[in-house]
Amino acid sequence: MSVAQPAAAPIALLTDFGLADWYVASVKGVLATRAPGVPLVDVTHEIAPGDVRQAAFVLEQAWRWFPPETVFLVVVDPGVGTARRALAVRAEERSLVGPDNGVLEPALASGAEVREIDPARVEAGAVSRTFHGRDLFAPAAAYLARGGAFESLGARVADPLRLVREPPVADTDSLVGHVVHVDRFGNCITDVTEAELSQLLAGRDPILLRAQAGSVRIDGLTETYGDSPPGIPSLLLGSTGRLEIAIRDQRAASHLGLRPGDPVHLRVRAGKAKS
Amino acid sequence: MSVAQPAAAPIALLTDFGLADWYVASVKGVLATRAPGVPLVDVTHEIAPGDVRQAAFVLEQAWRWFPPETVFLVVVDPGVGTARRALAVRAEERSLVGPDNGVLEPALASGAEVREIDPARVEAGAVSRTFHGRDLFAPAAAYLARGGAFESLGARVADPLRLVREPPVADTDSLVGHVVHVDRFGNCITDVTEAELSQLLAGRDPILLRAQAGSVRIDGLTETYGDSPPGIPSLLLGSTGRLEIAIRDQRAASHLGLRPGDPVHLRVRAGKAKS
Amino acid sequence: MSVAQPAAAPIALLTDFGLADWYVASVKGVLATRAPGVPLVDVTHEIAPGDVRQAAFVLEQAWRWFPPETVFLVVVDPGVGTARRALAVRAEERSLVGPDNGVLEPALASGAEVREIDPARVEAGAVSRTFHGRDLFAPAAAYLARGGAFESLGARVADPLRLVREPPVADTDSLVGHVVHVDRFGNCITDVTEAELSQLLAGRDPILLRAQAGSVRIDGLTETYGDSPPGIPSLLLGSTGRLEIAIRDQRAASHLGLRPGDPVHLRVRAGKAKS
Repeated sequence: MSVAQPAAAPIALLTDFGLADWYVASVKGVLATRAPGVPLVDVTHEIAPGDVRQAAFVLEQAWRWFPPETVFLVVVDPGVGTARRALAVRAEERSLVGPDNGVLEPALASGAEVREIDPARVEAGAVSRTFHGRDLFAPAAAYLARGGAFESLGARVADPLRLVREPPVADTDSLVGHVVHVDRFGNCITDVTEAELSQLLAGRDPILLRAQAGSVRIDGLTETYGDSPPGIPSLLLGSTGRLEIAIRDQRAASHLGLRPGDPVHLRVRAGKAKS
Repeated sequence: MSVAQPAAAPIALLTDFGLADWYVASVKGVLATRAPGVPLVDVTHEIAPGDVRQAAFVLEQAWRWFPPETVFLVVVDPGVGTARRALAVRAEERSLVGPDNGVLEPALASGAEVREIDPARVEAGAVSRTFHGRDLFAPAAAYLARGGAFESLGARVADPLRLVREPPVADTDSLVGHVVHVDRFGNCITDVTEAELSQLLAGRDPILLRAQAGSVRIDGLTETYGDSPPGIPSLLLGSTGRLEIAIRDQRAASHLGLRPGDPVHLRVRAGKAKS
Repeated sequence: MSVAQPAAAPIALLTDFGLADWYVASVKGVLATRAPGVPLVDVTHEIAPGDVRQAAFVLEQAWRWFPPETVFLVVVDPGVGTARRALAVRAEERSLVGPDNGVLEPALASGAEVREIDPARVEAGAVSRTFHGRDLFAPAAAYLARGGAFESLGARVADPLRLVREPPVADTDSLVGHVVHVDRFGNCITDVTEAELSQLLAGRDPILLRAQAGSVRIDGLTETYGDSPPGIPSLLLGSTGRLEIAIRDQRAASHLGLRPGDPVHLRVRAGKAKS
């Protein structure tokens, strides 16, 4: 077997368009026309319509797994056609295009360069006022995937819109986080990071951790879904690097009545520190 | 970054197979075997089972956005295995294959060339009587994508089945169209074209347009979803070039109780013509 | 049009991850990073969470349609992170990677070579205990797609876990099979193979076949969905090579109240043998 070298990095698409209409297809048609030979990869198109925060969370989980020079086309854009700006972000060797509504937040860390997309620079042609995904962001993504210069896209933007994240409330022995996502398996993913958890434990045995979420109480951290008996809720650091609540072979969210936004109270019980 | 040139135009797939079974995968396996290196792009596989009219509408919205030499494999085929013919259509530098049941309507304009696919010409091998998508249309699409001659596919067809579209009923000051599609956002897309709307307005101010659909009345055209206050239905020419009824940040179809087939009455109120 | 030759065989993905989360995307990101230029094809991601048997059935229907050297990444893995082994299978010129829980059954016929994947051999790096699809199976699939030697993957495995299939109960004139899958069209696909049906008929006319499933009785075999009148259940050998129960233009499963696991009783009525 032989693989053409060097192969093009992909364009990765993340939208709230769903898969039943022609919206994703017309975007892909534009990309196939303007950037032939560039692989197209779907991140997801199942973001709830207009849910910028959910889209940013999915983007955060996915984007660093893609190769350098990947171009992300991120279109969750309830304000399409209004005065909101169209942005391109350059961060960690990757590029992203999308509306200026916070959806590109995961890439807006220190050091990111942000530009406002000038339709003329990406040869956008006639831009409808209702479908910038097809008429503006797809041409911009194709321009970047073909190797177009990032700095030529348009004027630098100093103040892209940021999503505010409420950090978990913490004191020495306790912390209040929140469920931020329920996945297909019903696992409840929280906003509590591995670092925050380490800080809370401060070297104490993870068995001393106690979580309260809704009416359920869980003691101790497990390492994998299969470590707990069937039917018993468990607490673990999932593949996202966030604290999760799961039930082996069951949908934890349904069984425990948990939804995004629900608080998760963490406390370290008295006990011997790990030696 | 380097992109191989010239890159193959894609094969674009549009079916009612859904994504949960193996039907799409076995079609793609045949395409990957017979046309290696040709990109495969999904238009959609979520057409309601057997809904030829919906499939034709989605095809119409999508197909011109794809590059020249794209081959469309369109399989919504409730009559598979009966006497209906298998067709290939050549129109506007693109090719389409699918059953002779009207689903290829959008490409059957004047000037299109239509052929009946001869299984032997595309080396179809054993053709099951229940899955022509895999056994006949995929080989035909691969044949075309590899550069096979269109005119060698089989005999010319003069009378492909056409879908009849009821044109909107119109007089000087009014017009009755219909909702033809409700998209993922709940927008109600009608069959009223930009040209029909221009003719109805005849130079008069778009503010004078009044629509009645179900129990809702809407006055005036807006330009984009975000132009209307939240909760207020609006009328606009969407990215499809058709009149749409939408509600900002809400599902208009659910809120207004509108479904495909429902009439939309348009009238131009008395008023000053635009100068 | 020109197609690069030789083109890479694809990596085909089959999981229970769904399409709404970032799980499929992060796997694809790893594949695009480690095996650039290799086409990625989705078999399905809609397997019911943890349903190994359904995944094996879909794999069986799909895998032989893909070209030689295709690599299948099959991740339906409720035991992720426990002691279950990670396997690679080489069979019929294709490779498959997945957990040792029976999901790779369709490829485990006589002559298949099975290896346990050594994470170091595929340069898996840090392997989380909850997401082997991304951290172990994707690196293994990329290794194989890049042309890595199968026999270097790890130690040979002599006893991969097998799924037990209950063969249909048969005597001379009758046979009891089961519904194994209901597809998007509501067709009820059974586990009765063409060979088993031939043996039951033993040269007698297919019109003499009688099926009883739930409260419905069907006489005779038809050849295609469109051969029966609308609303009348029919029995046919579908494109899977298995006996199916279908109703033209309707969902047979809903109308007949049939579900996976339900028995289908077949009997050959007295009558003249085919001459």
